[in-house]
Amino acid sequence: MTDSDATALAERVRDGELRLYELEDHADPDTAAAARRHLLAEETGADLSAVGDYTFDAADAESNIENMVGAVQVPMGVVGPLPVDGGAAEGDHHLPLATSEGALLASVNRGVSTIRNAGGATARVLKSGMTRAPVFRVEDVAKAGEVSAWVREHVDVLADAAESTTSHGELQDVTPYVVGDSVFLRFSYDTKDAMGMNMATIATEAACDVVESETPADLVALSGNLCSDKKPAAINAVEGRGRTVAADVLIPHEQVEERLDTTSDAIVEANTRKNLVGSAKAGALGFNAHTANVVAAAFLALGQDIAQVVEGNNAITTVDAREDGLYASVTIPFLEVGNVGRGRFPEAFGGLEVGGDNGGGGDPAGSNAEALGEVIAGGALAGELSLLAALSSRHLSSAHAELGR
Amino acid sequence: MTDSDATALAERVRDGELRLYELEDHADPDTAAAARRHLLAEETGADLSAVGDYTFDAADAESNIENMVGAVQVPMGVVGPLPVDGGAAEGDHHLPLATSEGALLASVNRGVSTIRNAGGATARVLKSGMTRAPVFRVEDVAKAGEVSAWVREHVDVLADAAESTTSHGELQDVTPYVVGDSVFLRFSYDTKDAMGMNMATIATEAACDVVESETPADLVALSGNLCSDKKPAAINAVEGRGRTVAADVLIPHEQVEERLDTTSDAIVEANTRKNLVGSAKAGALGFNAHTANVVAAAFLALGQDIAQVVEGNNAITTVDAREDGLYASVTIPFLEVGNVGRGRFPEAFGGLEVGGDNGGGGDPAGSNAEALGEVIAGGALAGELSLLAALSSRHLSSAHAELGR
Amino acid sequence: MTDSDATALAERVRDGELRLYELEDHADPDTAAAARRHLLAEETGADLSAVGDYTFDAADAESNIENMVGAVQVPMGVVGPLPVDGGAAEGDHHLPLATSEGALLASVNRGVSTIRNAGGATARVLKSGMTRAPVFRVEDVAKAGEVSAWVREHVDVLADAAESTTSHGELQDVTPYVVGDSVFLRFSYDTKDAMGMNMATIATEAACDVVESETPADLVALSGNLCSDKKPAAINAVEGRGRTVAADVLIPHEQVEERLDTTSDAIVEANTRKNLVGSAKAGALGFNAHTANVVAAAFLALGQDIAQVVEGNNAITTVDAREDGLYASVTIPFLEVGNVGRGRFPEAFGGLEVGGDNGGGGDPAGSNAEALGEVIAGGALAGELSLLAALSSRHLSSAHAELGR
Amino acid sequence: MTDSDATALAERVRDGELRLYELEDHADPDTAAAARRHLLAEETGADLSAVGDYTFDAADAESNIENMVGAVQVPMGVVGPLPVDGGAAEGDHHLPLATSEGALLASVNRGVSTIRNAGGATARVLKSGMTRAPVFRVEDVAKAGEVSAWVREHVDVLADAAESTTSHGELQDVTPYVVGDSVFLRFSYDTKDAMGMNMATIATEAACDVVESETPADLVALSGNLCSDKKPAAINAVEGRGRTVAADVLIPHEQVEERLDTTSDAIVEANTRKNLVGSAKAGALGFNAHTANVVAAAFLALGQDIAQVVEGNNAITTVDAREDGLYASVTIPFLEVGNVGRGRFPEAFGGLEVGGDNGGGGDPAGSNAEALGEVIAGGALAGELSLLAALSSRHLSSAHAELGR
Repeated sequence: MTDSDATALAERVRDGELRLYELEDHADPDTAAAARRHLLAEETGADLSAVGDYTFDAADAESNIENMVGAVQVPMGVVGPLPVDGGAAEGDHHLPLATSEGALLASVNRGVSTIRNAGGATARVLKSGMTRAPVFRVEDVAKAGEVSAWVREHVDVLADAAESTTSHGELQDVTPYVVGDSVFLRFSYDTKDAMGMNMATIATEAACDVVESETPADLVALSGNLCSDKKPAAINAVEGRGRTVAADVLIPHEQVEERLDTTSDAIVEANTRKNLVGSAKAGALGFNAHTANVVAAAFLALGQDIAQVVEGNNAITTVDAREDGLYASVTIPFLEVGNVGRGRFPEAFGGLEVGGDNGGGGDPAGSNAEALGEVIAGGALAGELSLLAALSSRHLSSAHAELGR
Repeated sequence: MTDSDATALAERVRDGELRLYELEDHADPDTAAAARRHLLAEETGADLSAVGDYTFDAADAESNIENMVGAVQVPMGVVGPLPVDGGAAEGDHHLPLATSEGALLASVNRGVSTIRNAGGATARVLKSGMTRAPVFRVEDVAKAGEVSAWVREHVDVLADAAESTTSHGELQDVTPYVVGDSVFLRFSYDTKDAMGMNMATIATEAACDVVESETPADLVALSGNLCSDKKPAAINAVEGRGRTVAADVLIPHEQVEERLDTTSDAIVEANTRKNLVGSAKAGALGFNAHTANVVAAAFLALGQDIAQVVEGNNAITTVDAREDGLYASVTIPFLEVGNVGRGRFPEAFGGLEVGGDNGGGGDPAGSNAEALGEVIAGGALAGELSLLAALSSRHLSSAHAELGR
Repeated sequence: MTDSDATALAERVRDGELRLYELEDHADPDTAAAARRHLLAEETGADLSAVGDYTFDAADAESNIENMVGAVQVPMGVVGPLPVDGGAAEGDHHLPLATSEGALLASVNRGVSTIRNAGGATARVLKSGMTRAPVFRVEDVAKAGEVSAWVREHVDVLADAAESTTSHGELQDVTPYVVGDSVFLRFSYDTKDAMGMNMATIATEAACDVVESETPADLVALSGNLCSDKKPAAINAVEGRGRTVAADVLIPHEQVEERLDTTSDAIVEANTRKNLVGSAKAGALGFNAHTANVVAAAFLALGQDIAQVVEGNNAITTVDAREDGLYASVTIPFLEVGNVGRGRFPEAFGGLEVGGDNGGGGDPAGSNAEALGEVIAGGALAGELSLLAALSSRHLSSAHAELGR
Repeated sequence: MTDSDATALAERVRDGELRLYELEDHADPDTAAAARRHLLAEETGADLSAVGDYTFDAADAESNIENMVGAVQVPMGVVGPLPVDGGAAEGDHHLPLATSEGALLASVNRGVSTIRNAGGATARVLKSGMTRAPVFRVEDVAKAGEVSAWVREHVDVLADAAESTTSHGELQDVTPYVVGDSVFLRFSYDTKDAMGMNMATIATEAACDVVESETPADLVALSGNLCSDKKPAAINAVEGRGRTVAADVLIPHEQVEERLDTTSDAIVEANTRKNLVGSAKAGALGFNAHTANVVAAAFLALGQDIAQVVEGNNAITTVDAREDGLYASVTIPFLEVGNVGRGRFPEAFGGLEVGGDNGGGGDPAGSNAEALGEVIAGGALAGELSLLAALSSRHLSSAHAELGR
């Protein structure tokens, strides 16, 4: 491309000859993006040179973006090594985090090094299933009851239809929920190493055809919000979505003092008053300090869906001063992660391999994605420990200052 | 830097001579990052070349990231022009969105063009205030009552302390909440054109010193989760945080059919059963279809805090088939956005100017950030309309097919 | 008893010779109650004559109350007949309601007569199961995973233990939930015609012994609040507890105008803005107008557990203006009702038979309690219709007045 | 009345000559009730003799019930004396509880005696205000913003209108909340010694007329569910409704062991895992063991609105093992209680005087209702302590048994 090509293209848009989204029909994708930057810079006075300074081929991004103008670059760092004794993850792991929030990685890494020093974290995926929940209209609650009963008895028929659309996914269960003349069917799939939302959606659409043809129910929307995707919802907190994962660690009390500059009791108090009682009073669905920070940065680094960051907010952090040390845990009821298709824009993300092999070759299938979930949970645990320590040591230092007066 | 410098540096880490976070003490930041990529590639077998292919100077990112290994590049596109009649925003706006989820921009842009065709969106910031809520320990509920009363009567004293730490922020209010022997004080600030969380934290810390010296309360944690930051919490849904913003549009019924390929009644039904009844049944704090997608992509494009994407999930979408058209609205109770410091990594983000001038020069102060909030809300509205239309037209098409049998 | 006996007894308490709870050891229960009234009247100056004017034999209440002073009398009325086409209920039913809130019965009865005129309500119990969820302590998340897996594989063993304690109850399912080192096991029972909470508690205690002996889990509390009893909880809203029941009706539009003095559209608008959008904004778990009023009054009249009134608050009310009339529904996700043991103080309640035979003789077992749930849901539906009509006609009348200006 | 009068009246209903609700036009209220019992007994085969055995004059209940058939009698007992050091309550108090759940009073009284032995409870009303929140329709979010602004600036005008309807109530505040084209105005009143819901409703209706005449807003429903009455709602948990009240106690550790047969640590563990973590996982709005039991029984004994029992469920219970003893607290964010009009059926309830003088003569006004709230909170605290102790000592005993093996 030449800059003059982009300028000329921009001119044609300005003249009303072309529309912004038609540029790729008249030039290569990089030139089209450059033309859009011209137009935007002119309109807004903004300097778009950094946005245009991407290093991948725009043509490779055509299935990822429309109306492309360039790219955002977010710095990426790494924390670790974090020893994780997981159901799928084993041994030391580095977790990449992309963020522009200074000090976040340093803080998480302090937690990681504390965990490492204490012998590492334990982690488990406790439940697994990607869900999609269409909503149907029926005549009345009697029909709603009939449809629910039919569904409960014909999960195998629905599985046949759903699984005909996918080579990997397996329908695990279908749970009916009724509100008046609305019937919601929550389909849950084993999506192996994929995050699996698209797989679940396509499979569910096929199953919906069966429901419509075999029962009096009419489909209103393929998603009825009981899925529940990208919304903070108690149904996910209770039933899980994606991977339900927990990580914990036991830290000798003296290590808490040496490495975290506070005491086990102070961390327990901060966690109880802030994460448990404070969140209870706030009417929150999240009982943690800042798991969202770690989940967001990991999702961005690892090519996960950023809009699903909400899921990481829902975590419950517990700490307990046991005789032999400070016990701390983070439980994330719904973490939508996958290793297949995760590099939805692989040129950018570089294929960092966390939790074993990249991609869908987990053995058994799904174990790579489980390992990824376990490592992220371990990172979130590190972040919780570090922030709780910082909050409680601030208190301690002020208390010390007070004594010194 | 030369590649051999990075290789040599990596060697020294391997030998235990240096630790991963000490590399910047021994080489320039780009070489340090390269050395970390060497180590990680070796450990994981991953190809990190794309991660290393960033185009900014690593030295410029030192306040944004630790343990840098490179950067993630996320493609950015643009939707618009979106006419917004706002309290602060005026006229046409383009909204940049960074994502790798194909079809998202096309879908949002369909909504944008529908809104534009209908005359544009109306938007308003209805409330504004960045909050921070420390938690204190007291002896008993009698002391809790005393502290609460003292705070209510001394907001001016607390404001003096808080505002001594900032040249821009103003303390608007302090609200005490009590649970047994825990007292939470929710400080709310006018942070002008800044998102303002750091400002609020620093100012609150100063005010806490006053509370501790003037009352029997002891600070336990500078954040007590009633803030509530990066957690889905009803207190924010009710009281707001950052900007409480709403956008709406009235679309003539025939335009709904022509442009969205469905009917107003079908959209109303989908919204009621999915976004209202479905979310109610799900125990959700978000009553919308996918506002998180638009908020996440806009936050990433505009350098906002990605972990605050949770806030966009909390929106309520309403639609109503009026006589003169389809009314649709999106209300986001807490959207933490700012134009000052937003380019926390400005080299990457390029300073796209949405909602007027970039930065803190709004007149009155804060109007730039308000305009930004209004435009994002307009974009979220477009996304809701497009997805609701897609869901309900799918239903229509299947209904049509049925009739054709 | 003579009044002088009671006076003498009171004297001995005053002298410190006896304690308040020991009176039944020294006199018959009625005299003991009289003595307590003496003491209280003296202490408080209150007139306790009405409290003492009960008409049952205090001895019959010994298993229902301690430290008895008398009784409260609450007036009871009746609404109906309400035709219910239920899964268990059939034909016309009268629903007794005990309350001192004037106009409540008149209002509900207006709704009942509207439903009757429209041909009656349809109702269904959609799910049934009384739950109890103990919480256990384990060492870490790995053990939590092990215990969960063991439980999933040994439901039959737990059923043997649980069912050994009851002649009627059947263990339906046990669902494990994990938060860090806490494992919650939610046991769900078919309790037939009984409300079944005590049955569930005793059976679960026996099952807990097995869990403790066969796994590394230690019981912390027999109820871990995931049951969840007498707390408004999303887990119940999602999964149900007791009976999940729904009732609906289709009312011709002209009957809405004639009988409810409003229009179908006005009711739809009131329901959407108040019960759906308003409750969403309020962060509520209940999306209805006042189902608690009907549930509370019915529970009091029918000898159900008044503290479980919270359950009735959780209902979702939907209305829809269909072509052929106004569709209205009430869905109560958790309504704990029973016909066995319900007259826990049968002398007082008189054995009103709602929903068929009183007691546990339903055929099949459980159908009497289901019928009771269906009739209460029908009554709640009547209450919703009447209040929504009153709210929206108030609006209409003011609109009319406006037009008349 | 004679029984034959009632029989004759019943006959006329059976013949279709009279309707059930017209009987009071043709006979005295007691005869009318007897006639209804005849009809019901015939229809259902139920024995209604106990229901008919009420001891008040049915004529006195005409403003409390319609379609009267009789009354329910619930046994009433008393716990105490409970020393309460409150903001309004002072000294020893007996709390009447009406229930048919055996062992409840004994359990609560165990907690009361433990508190008494430890020196009594401290209690405070932390906030006070009865709310009503109508919902209005506006054209768009711009108008919503205008109406909100107008309301904020004209609270005095609204107060004039509202207070013209009441001799006691004072409008404290009006808070606007916007969702799209719906504007909710939450009116909060100081209702003195009354619970005040009717007062608030009538006053708000008058204020709504002003809003409608001065702004473009149209009233849709006088209650828009942000009040929020008889629904479990986060807005109440955060902002309070009625009285926000807390009670606590500090119990020496040895007294915990002697009187509650468990240890402070065991109670802390049960509270953390059950009431905090368990409720968090359950998505609950209530973080307590069974406050609803005490609130329900006290409301029934004291003539409060039973349907508002839901309010007591929302409490947060905290316990903390301090150096000098076990600290325990219960905080109830919204407890709707009143002393004026509370004996809405005074003949039945007998005017038990709790928390000082019965009725509205508190000095200052409102202090009687506040005292009532404080004593109920103290009773709830006693109930929490007793149940937590029972749960944790069961654990202890099984642990002991284990050691003995």
